[in-house]
Parts: sequence; C-alpha cells; structure tokens
Amino acid sequence: MAALAGLPIVRRGDAIGSLVIEALQRESRVLKQQDVIVVAQKIISKAEGRVVALDSVTPGELAREWAGKTQKDPRLVELILSESKRVVRHRPGVLIVEHRLGFVMANAGVDQSNAGPAGQGEHAILLPVDPDESAERLRAEVFAATGTDVAVVINDSFGRPWRRGTMGIAIGAAGLPVILDLRGQPDMFGRELAVSISGFADEIAAGASLVMGQGAEGQPVVIVSGLVWSEPATTARELVRPEAEDLFR
Amino acid sequence: MAALAGLPIVRRGDAIGSLVIEALQRESRVLKQQDVIVVAQKIISKAEGRVVALDSVTPGELAREWAGKTQKDPRLVELILSESKRVVRHRPGVLIVEHRLGFVMANAGVDQSNAGPAGQGEHAILLPVDPDESAERLRAEVFAATGTDVAVVINDSFGRPWRRGTMGIAIGAAGLPVILDLRGQPDMFGRELAVSISGFADEIAAGASLVMGQGAEGQPVVIVSGLVWSEPATTARELVRPEAEDLFR
Repeated sequence: MAALAGLPIVRRGDAIGSLVIEALQRESRVLKQQDVIVVAQKIISKAEGRVVALDSVTPGELAREWAGKTQKDPRLVELILSESKRVVRHRPGVLIVEHRLGFVMANAGVDQSNAGPAGQGEHAILLPVDPDESAERLRAEVFAATGTDVAVVINDSFGRPWRRGTMGIAIGAAGLPVILDLRGQPDMFGRELAVSISGFADEIAAGASLVMGQGAEGQPVVIVSGLVWSEPATTARELVRPEAEDLFR
Repeated sequence: MAALAGLPIVRRGDAIGSLVIEALQRESRVLKQQDVIVVAQKIISKAEGRVVALDSVTPGELAREWAGKTQKDPRLVELILSESKRVVRHRPGVLIVEHRLGFVMANAGVDQSNAGPAGQGEHAILLPVDPDESAERLRAEVFAATGTDVAVVINDSFGRPWRRGTMGIAIGAAGLPVILDLRGQPDMFGRELAVSISGFADEIAAGASLVMGQGAEGQPVVIVSGLVWSEPATTARELVRPEAEDLFR
C-alpha cells in the first residue's frame, strides 16, 4: 500500500487514468492484476468539472431556511440540498443528509477545501455524478493503456455515528467485489462463521485513506497490492444498505 | 502492512507479546519505532480467559425476554446483556447494544465462532475487560523484550448503520494518537481544512482487518510499518463520541 508520487494538480477534463499511468512510469512501477488503485474523490470531481463557484448559486427558500437553522452559508446549503434526498440530522454547523446516491453523510460530501486557488472567489466541490461509472472509466483507461486488469476504488472521508473522527469509505468501485461474503466458511474449529460479511472495498478505502493522510499534502492516489479475491466484481452502490434492511433510518 | 505468520493458537494465560516476538524472530523480522502491531480482539480475549461455556450460564428473566424477541439463545443473550448498558435496536436474529465500554455494536461483541474445539460444549468469547489496558500491556511486553517503542491496536469487526458489511475498528490502543486533528492546517490553496479529524486508529484497524481477512484462516496479527505521527498517544476510549456530541443516540 503506497501513495503515488508526482501526480500533478488535477484540472477539469483531465483523464485520471493517463495521469496515474504517467506517474507510475516516472517511478518505473508496473501495475499487476488485482492491484487496486484508490483515488480520492476530490480529484475525480475536479477532473469531471464538479466544481461550482459559490457566487453563481442562488439559494432558494428551503436552503435559506436550513441555512438559518445550521448557521451555514445559504449558497452552500443550496448545493447540499440539490445533492440530497432528505435531511437526516442537523445542528448549528452540521447538516447530515441522505445523498442522492444513498450515502448518509455530512454536507452531501460538498466540500470547500482545496476547491481552487484563492483570489478566484469561493468554490465548492460536489461528489462525482456517478462514482461507480467514474471508477469503471478509470479502470478502462488503465486497461486500454497497459492491458492490466486492475480494480479501482474512489474514496471519501465519512464521519460516523457514535465514533469520533472520519474514516475512508468507498463511494465508487470497479473491478472488485465490494463485499466479501464469508458466511458458510467454517472457522478454525469447524463451526460456521456467524457474522462475516466484510465491507472489502470500504476497508480498502480506509487503509488507503490512512496513507493519503500521511503526506504533507496532496497524496490523492494510493496503489494497494497483494489482495486476492475470486468473487465477481460489484459496484459501491452495493455497499449502501437497503432501507428495508436498515435499523437506523 | 503484513500479517505475521506462524503464530500458534492462543490459549488462556499466554502473553501475546512473547508469541509475537517469537514469531517475528522466526521470520528474522525486526520491529522499528512507530511500527503498529494490530491484534484481533479474539486472541486477546482468549489469552485473558474471556471464554465462557454456555452451559455455565443461567439466563435471567430479562435475558429470556430479549431472547424471545430476537429468537436468540437465552444464555447468549444473558452474556450480551451482562456486557451492555442498554439495548439500542433489535429484530429477529439481531441485538444491537451499547457495550459497557461505549461501543454501539451487535451482540456486545460476544462471539460464538472460534471459541474452542468442537465436542467440548458451546463457548462464547467476550471482549477484553479493558482493551486499552490489554494494548498497553502488549506494548510494554514488546518494549521490555526489544527496547523498541511500538504502538498497539486491538481491532474487531463492527457492522455500521446505513452500509453493508463489517469494518475493522479499534477497540483498544496504546502508543499512538487514536485521532489525528488536522484542523487549522492549510490545504493546498491556503484555505483551512474544514473537516479533518481523522479516526487514525480506526483506519489502521480497518486496513489491518483487510489483511487478516485475506488468509484462509487465523491471521490475527498484522504489523503496519511506515506510519508517522508526532501527537501524544491516546487510548481507544477517545474514539467513542461523548453522548452530548452525538446526533444519533
């Protein structure tokens, strides 16, 4: 598990796959099958032009109402609500929503940090339109250029109920099973394992987030090698627990 | 990040520190400062004798009541309740509680898998009495034997609201800051980072859980190298969000 050095600052329209391959070549690193390329959501969103100038946003009545309740910038709240199905919790400074993709998260993932150079007005970054599709596109770019069958995870930092601090979570995935279902495999003493559906892509996202966070700044791509799986690939949408199964909605 | 091979099956009274050091020596591996030894909760509990024969448990009235509601073994429910402050959610097959240590988790972490050889009656494993203290003890054993200042994380797999699959989480820690508070550090464009309290020990626990899960069976110790920190050490208790801050209790 190692961060990729030498990645340039990502701009709108960039093909992340090409940037990753060029950076790997500069390091003389070769991708292997089942390597997982973990990419921070922020650079995917930037490449896809999901950056909005706050000056261009006109908050509606609902946004102004929630902005009052949470003491947040009404333009930011307008963007958050435009990305959300519903507000789950709020208090001053905090707006937790169900994102249109099903993620329960703070501010619908709308982020003001790193959005662009100072002096050009305030910007915000939204999540990619379809992070699973973004992951699949990156995977296809890498396959086209190298012939190597890698997997891709797009991660973002999520807060959690009951625990302090954020953890990396997979919001997009391609080329790997996001969940490993170990039910039915006997444990060391022959008894069936009871609870053993593991959030494989989320654990990859968290481990990579650890490495991303270790740099002084800007280590948005991490390559995870050495994992193995035999299950068919699924997408990060599968990690969202269906409402009917969920005891916490 | 690599699993430690050759660890024997852990028995009551074992000093995990000695087992780890012996296994490292067989591999000619040397621990470095700020290496993190991640240990699965299960072997800590076994070493500390936190294994209970279900035949020895007499369920009380409350346990029988909850067993009826959840269709679980009343003896198991008795153990779960004895480890819990309160029941948070339930449905058939599922009992989510607030553990006496503050963790919101399924079955208070009481686990029937891997508890012991078949034919000796059914057993269950409880969480360590004080996982932070268990971590500190292991850290002290390693320091006494090697003079190297390592960190220790004890992890367990937790389900999460809203998302499918479990993730590794830190239930005990010693020798490292469990949370990294990056607030106030400027981002790449000089703006202050907004949300950047990261659950450092939880991300370590999740990444290690990924590696533990990759073995056919029984890879309960993972060594994570290459991380750096300068903040003072805290304990895993710090990861439990105080009730007053929590929007989901």
